[in-house]
Formats: sequence, C-alpha cells, structure tokens
Amino acid sequence: MTPLAVSLGDPAGVGPEIVAKAWDARTGRALPPFFAIGDPRALAAVWAGPVVEIADPAEAADAFAAGLPVLPVRGTGEIRPGEPDLAGAQVALDSLEQAMALVLAGRAGALVTAPVSKAQLYAVGFRYPGQTEFVTDRCGLDTDETVMMLAGPGLRVVPMTTHVPLSAVPALLTSERIAASVRVTAAGLRRDFGIAAPRLVLAGLNPHAGESGAIGREEIEVMEPTIARLRSEGIDVTGPHAADTLFHPRARERYDAALCGYHDQALVPIKTLFFDDGVNITLGLPVVRTSPDHGTAFGIAGQDRAVAGAMIAAIAMAGLAAGRRAAERA
Amino acid sequence: MTPLAVSLGDPAGVGPEIVAKAWDARTGRALPPFFAIGDPRALAAVWAGPVVEIADPAEAADAFAAGLPVLPVRGTGEIRPGEPDLAGAQVALDSLEQAMALVLAGRAGALVTAPVSKAQLYAVGFRYPGQTEFVTDRCGLDTDETVMMLAGPGLRVVPMTTHVPLSAVPALLTSERIAASVRVTAAGLRRDFGIAAPRLVLAGLNPHAGESGAIGREEIEVMEPTIARLRSEGIDVTGPHAADTLFHPRARERYDAALCGYHDQALVPIKTLFFDDGVNITLGLPVVRTSPDHGTAFGIAGQDRAVAGAMIAAIAMAGLAAGRRAAERA
Repeated sequence: MTPLAVSLGDPAGVGPEIVAKAWDARTGRALPPFFAIGDPRALAAVWAGPVVEIADPAEAADAFAAGLPVLPVRGTGEIRPGEPDLAGAQVALDSLEQAMALVLAGRAGALVTAPVSKAQLYAVGFRYPGQTEFVTDRCGLDTDETVMMLAGPGLRVVPMTTHVPLSAVPALLTSERIAASVRVTAAGLRRDFGIAAPRLVLAGLNPHAGESGAIGREEIEVMEPTIARLRSEGIDVTGPHAADTLFHPRARERYDAALCGYHDQALVPIKTLFFDDGVNITLGLPVVRTSPDHGTAFGIAGQDRAVAGAMIAAIAMAGLAAGRRAAERA
Repeated sequence: MTPLAVSLGDPAGVGPEIVAKAWDARTGRALPPFFAIGDPRALAAVWAGPVVEIADPAEAADAFAAGLPVLPVRGTGEIRPGEPDLAGAQVALDSLEQAMALVLAGRAGALVTAPVSKAQLYAVGFRYPGQTEFVTDRCGLDTDETVMMLAGPGLRVVPMTTHVPLSAVPALLTSERIAASVRVTAAGLRRDFGIAAPRLVLAGLNPHAGESGAIGREEIEVMEPTIARLRSEGIDVTGPHAADTLFHPRARERYDAALCGYHDQALVPIKTLFFDDGVNITLGLPVVRTSPDHGTAFGIAGQDRAVAGAMIAAIAMAGLAAGRRAAERA
C-alpha cells in the first residue's frame, strides 16, 4: 500500500506526540505504513524514538520499519510544547498544504491530519472554518458535496449542520441538505467502509421527533417527505426517530450511521461514548481523509499525557478506506 | 419508614410487571417497603407472585414481607397487556389521584409513578402534559418552581426546557428560567441527595458553547451573567460548557448535575448511557416523587421482557430521599 501522509498539525499541540505514539503502536495495531509531514524538531521535543528524515514519499515504505519517516517542513524559532506561536502555525499550514498536494497527486495513499489551532492559523492567512473545508476546497468541491462523519468503535454519526448557532438550525435543515447528506453518507459507507447496503437513520429535530406534530412540524413537513423520496431511490434510510432513544447499545445495532440535525445532537453521543478514540472522516472526497476527533490540547502537550487512541484509529480507518479504493481501481 | 406508594400506571403497559419485579428484587436491592395502587388483575395478568390486597396504607408495612401489597383500584372490562383502552386509562388516572392524595396526607412516604399513556389519559379527561405537571399542580406549585431531573448511576441531568419545538428553545432560555432551574436543582440535591455543596454545570446552547460569540450570542448575553449572579449567591455553578465534551466519564466526575438547555441535550446522554435504569425525579416539591424514565412499552407488555431496573432505581431513590426528609424533620 502507498504510505499515508500524516500532517503533524500545530507543533506545540499534541499532534507530534500522538503521531509518534501511533508509530510505536504500528505492529500491535497492524497500522498501514505512514509518514509524517512537519517539523522534525516537534517530534524530538516530545519523543525519544527514532525519526527517519526522508526527501521523497517514495522512501517512506522502506523507512517505516526503522523509524517514523518524516518529510521535513522546517519552521523558524523555537518549538515549545503547549506554547503555540505564529511560526508554528505557518509550519502547520505548510505541512497541510504539502500533504494535501501529495495525496491529490497519488503519492500518498490517504491524508490524516493532526489537530491545528484555528485561531493561530487565521493569523497566518488561513481562510477556512477548519481543515475539512480546506481539504474540500483543494479537491475542487463545495462543502455541500461532502459530509463530516464521526466514527467510534460502535457508532457513526453525521451532523448535517455544524458550527452554526442553534437558532439557525431549523431553517438550514432543508430537504436538499438532508437528501445530499444521506446520499453522500450512503455512498461513502459503501465505498470506504465496504458496507454493501448501508442502513441509515435520521434523528428528528424536535423532542420525540415532534410527536406527530405536537412538538414541532419539521419532521412532518421536511423530513418525512425527504425520507420517502430517498427510499424510492433505493436508499435504506428510516426515521425521523426520537434522538434520545437512538444511541443506547441495542438501538445502535440497528443502523450503520445516524444523520443528526445539528452539532451537539451528533457530537454529544459520540463524545460521551468514545471520547478517546473518535475519528473524523470526510466523505464524498476524491481522496481519503481522516483525523482524530479532538483538538490541539495545548494544556497537556509535551507531558506524555496525550492519548493516541483517536490518531491510531484515524490512521487505521484511512488505511482500510484507501485499501478498498485501491482494490476497486485495480 | 412509611411505605412508599407506587401507582401501577396503565394496566396494559409494563407498569404492573416492573412493579412486581421490583418486589421480587426487594431483598437483593434493599428496597424500602412499598405498596402498589392499581387494579390487582393487572398484576395477576403478568405475574404469578403473591399479591396482598390491603384496605389501608397502614397495613402495607406488615404485608410487604409476604407479598406485594396492593391498594385496589378496580377497573371495568378485561385487561389485555399490550392493548390499552379507556377503562385502563381511567384506572391509571384514579390510581394516580389516590396515590397523590395519600402522599400529600403523609400516609405514604413518597410517590413513585409507573408509566401512563398520555394519549389514552387525554381521552378520559386528563388535562396535563404529563404526570409531572399533574403532581406539581396537586402540590399547589407552578411548573417553574420545580425541575425534572433525570438520574442514572453516573449522571444527573436537568432539561431546562422540555416538550417544546427546538426552534422555541432559544427564546425560552431566559435568565429567570436558568436561575430558577439552578436554584431548585441545588436545593434538591442538598435536601434529597444529601450533597452538602452541589457542583453544578451549565451546558452551552450553541456548538462549543458559542466559541466566544463566534457561533451564537446566548452564552455571552444570557448564560454568563446569570452564572455570575448565581455564584454570587454562593451556588457552585460553572459554565457555559461545550455540551459535547461534558458527558464522557472523566468529565462526569467533576459535577453532581448538568443543566441542559433543551430536551435532547439532556436526554441523549442519559439515555445513551443509562437506558435501562434512568430515574426521573421531580425536585422542588413538598413531597418526594420519582418514576422510571421510560414509557408504557405496550409492544413488550405481558411478555416477561420488561427490564425493571429503572423502576427498582426509582423506588430506591424515592426511599433514600424520603428517609433524608424524615430524618430532617425528626
């Protein structure tokens, strides 16, 4: 398999540490070969393991057994874990750009991104709400052509709206948005997860999914007709279901992904259950892109306290998806 | 301890079965003595254990060892588990009325209510959104003087708004409502749970608690000043916190109850984690009232499939709270 590109994210965050720990876990967790893109000094600052600087991604596969391969993006100034600065943000941005270009050129098998600091990135000229929107744009797509899916060991959720005020959600949840989210999710589960006939559920917007219109009309006026249309296209989607009874263990067995109306409806269950190993995967892209579902955690950076579970899961998931796409092309 | 009154709820629902199963578990779970109020035939239809009909609550304590004491409320017509009808709804309503009256008169130690069918109750003249509002009204209080708290083995949540459309939530979450909910919750945790200095957290309304105003202003304009005022009163409440990172195991250790802006923000985490043993307790009442946090489950009634965990927990919690109040009065 073509090695995966892992951008180290903000050099002062937990990114370098969790990527290094993922390399430590490569055998036990059967991870695919990968290489880091970022400042090698950020790794040296938090990890005593072997780093192998490479000049070209083609060297990564051979180097992977002996050490963590790193395609260097050298920054200026000192690197102090837990103390982000603009030089570090510039390195994070340059690393992301380079990783993206390699994946688009087919020189890396998939893109895995470690966390960045948005506030710092904005200060060095980044113009996107987050890495997901950057990646989507570099792929030549609009954000409504892709979806963010969050996956833990026993749950996959898709927030159909994300970083908007709660009061804006009802108007944003149009039939078009719901239908596009469902179609992209169904296609993504088939293509990247090997689920031949994905079972999708749609969470109601209102308590008890509106209780037949007694507690809100969006379910009747928007969601039910949209589901009927999607089912007529052959997509196995049901609902709207009451959100509060959709995420306990027995309920989760009945579907492959839950589509949620807003950020917290999706993020509360996944982070409540799988806080340390949630993966963010962008579906609908021409390339595979995953990331750990957590932030830079500057407060614990450089203290050997960061849990690498989500990064390990993000690399493993990217490897499986990239492998499926490669097999499909072959 | 004065035995607790347990209304059997809809005779065709799972109420009779889970109350009977709670009696079966009385020794192993160290439950306080209780008596049922409802149609004895509803118990006989689903349970082969011993039922002791009593004519007065004063007989319940002595009867409890030999069988499940029942203060009979006899209905008309047949009882068919899983097939609700109006005669059953009338029995449920009469049982609730009688149980409430006994608790208010001090002849029962607390009120525990099994699930009812609201649709059926409306048809026989019930005029409240649910049993909680009925109980609140019978205590001579307004609903804004009480709060509904849902409690599982490792989490307590309070939805500050309940059965309203999501689009109505932002306007309903006034400073007054938040302050009243926090004060009633703090007082309830002290009085009924024996927590001397309750630690409360407030969940933000918007994603990431508004991210300093970038994703909604309610946190800055309403929540922060309200929290400052409550803290100046000596209440240990913090926030607003991002809801998605408030419910994982390490986060839950840091507080005694989480106040949430709307139904699903509170109900999703509690039902995701504690689907089979969540308890609903009404705080702020002059009497103790709990119920299992689930519905009539007509679909499985009479099949010996109902899990009694929530009813058992509701009886245990009511017993502890009633015991604390009795000790306080003594």
